[in-house]
Amino acid sequence: MKPMGPIPPEFAAQTGALTIAGRSAEDWMAGHDGPVFVYDPAIVATRVARFREAFPSIDLHYAIKANPHPPLLKAMAAMVDGFDVASAGELAKVAPLGKPVSFAGPGKRDSELTAAIQAGVTINLESEGEAMRALGLADRLGVTPRLAVRVNPDVELRGSGMKMGGRPSPFGIDAERVPALIRHLCQVGADWRGFHIYAGSQALDPQAIIDTQAATIALAARLAEKAGVTPPLVNLGGGFGVPYFAGDNTLPVERVGEALEQALAARSAILSQSRFAIELGRWLVAEAGVYLARVIDRKESGGETFLILDGGLHHQLAASGNFGTVVRRNYPLAIARAMGATAEETVSVVGPLCTPLDRLGDRVALPPARVGDIVAVFLAGAYGATASPAAFLGHPPAAEILGGAV
Amino acid sequence: MKPMGPIPPEFAAQTGALTIAGRSAEDWMAGHDGPVFVYDPAIVATRVARFREAFPSIDLHYAIKANPHPPLLKAMAAMVDGFDVASAGELAKVAPLGKPVSFAGPGKRDSELTAAIQAGVTINLESEGEAMRALGLADRLGVTPRLAVRVNPDVELRGSGMKMGGRPSPFGIDAERVPALIRHLCQVGADWRGFHIYAGSQALDPQAIIDTQAATIALAARLAEKAGVTPPLVNLGGGFGVPYFAGDNTLPVERVGEALEQALAARSAILSQSRFAIELGRWLVAEAGVYLARVIDRKESGGETFLILDGGLHHQLAASGNFGTVVRRNYPLAIARAMGATAEETVSVVGPLCTPLDRLGDRVALPPARVGDIVAVFLAGAYGATASPAAFLGHPPAAEILGGAV
Repeated sequence: MKPMGPIPPEFAAQTGALTIAGRSAEDWMAGHDGPVFVYDPAIVATRVARFREAFPSIDLHYAIKANPHPPLLKAMAAMVDGFDVASAGELAKVAPLGKPVSFAGPGKRDSELTAAIQAGVTINLESEGEAMRALGLADRLGVTPRLAVRVNPDVELRGSGMKMGGRPSPFGIDAERVPALIRHLCQVGADWRGFHIYAGSQALDPQAIIDTQAATIALAARLAEKAGVTPPLVNLGGGFGVPYFAGDNTLPVERVGEALEQALAARSAILSQSRFAIELGRWLVAEAGVYLARVIDRKESGGETFLILDGGLHHQLAASGNFGTVVRRNYPLAIARAMGATAEETVSVVGPLCTPLDRLGDRVALPPARVGDIVAVFLAGAYGATASPAAFLGHPPAAEILGGAV
Repeated sequence: MKPMGPIPPEFAAQTGALTIAGRSAEDWMAGHDGPVFVYDPAIVATRVARFREAFPSIDLHYAIKANPHPPLLKAMAAMVDGFDVASAGELAKVAPLGKPVSFAGPGKRDSELTAAIQAGVTINLESEGEAMRALGLADRLGVTPRLAVRVNPDVELRGSGMKMGGRPSPFGIDAERVPALIRHLCQVGADWRGFHIYAGSQALDPQAIIDTQAATIALAARLAEKAGVTPPLVNLGGGFGVPYFAGDNTLPVERVGEALEQALAARSAILSQSRFAIELGRWLVAEAGVYLARVIDRKESGGETFLILDGGLHHQLAASGNFGTVVRRNYPLAIARAMGATAEETVSVVGPLCTPLDRLGDRVALPPARVGDIVAVFLAGAYGATASPAAFLGHPPAAEILGGAV
């Protein structure tokens, strides 16, 4: 038997039939001939509320790459202060929502820069070359571009699932070259919006985040002083993790918030008029989503029991351990009609794909399950439907549903 | 500097502008606002010819999961003896092509079994439960179902990239339970088509394949003798690998073919009237495909150089090392206008996605490249476009083009 990660608190205490956003898993699957993702906006709202309480003076941005489901974006427009996008496709999804938008990404095409400039979006510049392209395009359009500088920080976020600072990187501009670029942007009349500094993601160690945020503020101050201008906004990045696996803790964001308020209170004078933002994706939405798939077959092989689902890695690649993880570990799973029931047997839960990669639960302890039962895969609200190879092996895509009302 | 895998022979000797199926990479990209996959059916044809020469008495099946691009399937219908599919979606793609089809996959839904029975397709049964469902559905349809038994073999394919035998498995039925199922299928009047025995994939060691095929034939004979019936067809699986990485060899299929002919000459009497098939996906098509993307930016960071492309893991996940590989290694890459030119610099080649996972070449040696150049990623004909998270981060999908004529 191998352990599973913790079921998110909104579901962990349930008994009997699993309820998501006020309806049972069976209800949500009715009328769908296959797996569904259900997202509960009320759970997102609790995370937002927790953030607001912990970070009263900080703007909250949602990085939509985590989950760009349009109804969810619409619900989140009422909760967050801005959206961060990573392509013209993502920009088109949030453009109608009337919130401030920033656009990061190391390979923006000319057509994407043009769309961003025309929409008045803040472009987080990733290189001097991109800066020159953006200025040239804005000039031809006769528009003053809103440009922030993404900094490749000289610090990394310790213990983060993906490090994005402290090393040679495709993301951002090395810190020592940033002041010269800012001066150039200001000289040529661009609307310089400040900094974007992102050091890592999926961090669960509060002290690592605290140290990184302090270093980020110090770096922003140093760069602003060298450039001789105050940044209107400092985007401190995000990196708040969620517990996916056995032994993972819940991040005590209150402790991070307290430390950040202290760090800001002591900040350099050049940042005294700057706003600060934290950009979160996964932390806001991962726990709000549940992936539901049905048991198609139950079989024994070599003394082991397999539950074979109608859904798998083509819908939820990350849960199969094949996206950004070196060692495969189990996401939390449950038999949807038997929440809280005793885990009486050890089974492997696999998808319908003809590949051994398609495994959602490796020798997990679950209550007995029959053909027709629904298996719930938790932590499916971020990097699920859009981060999976939906066309692989020609199965239908999963449905995505925004449950309930906020 | 880290090594790259070998460029496939059809491209390795080229100098100057890269030519695929008789046209230059620039030509293929013209009119496409973004990356393209180009597949050369003539290269597929050379692999088919090599197979025919090496395995004169063996049927050749194409497992379309490797690449189900419809024009490619149409071209291959003239080259192979049958198609293997893994879903009703794949079945729909080959149904109009008039070739024998078999359908494997551990989680076939009732609707999929029904479609297969109605189309007269051979269903490779993965469990007793699936057998009973298929028989019941066929009975209601009033059709005699074509049923083969997929065996979970008691041998594994040594050295294969993905082992699918010799252990508890969601695939197939454990060998010791197979004779009883065959007897049942024959008793109730199903059209029993034989065995499907698949032990692993992406093997480059000929002796491992030779040993596995010999063990597979022996297993098929043992099971047929116990069941007391001759299998019309024994699908020996496939598993032929292609060289992706530095140090990988080209599989000497001629040696495998010779050994297989010998093994078949000595086979048990109960198999004397059986046909044999080998099912290949990757080996037929991987080297025939090239993924082409353009350099959007070239930047320096921390003393390293990055080429940033307009394509990346959302189109070609496997090349980023995030799909089924534990250690990330470099696929072969080239600057398309400079085939055969001296590799004068070390660069990392990354995609446009805002994640450090999006890296197609890690510190590879290439000729100097400029913004606007095309980078070719080889070995893109199998498990590329359909095995990648196309919607991730909202970039447009890559185009797929079948080049030339066979």
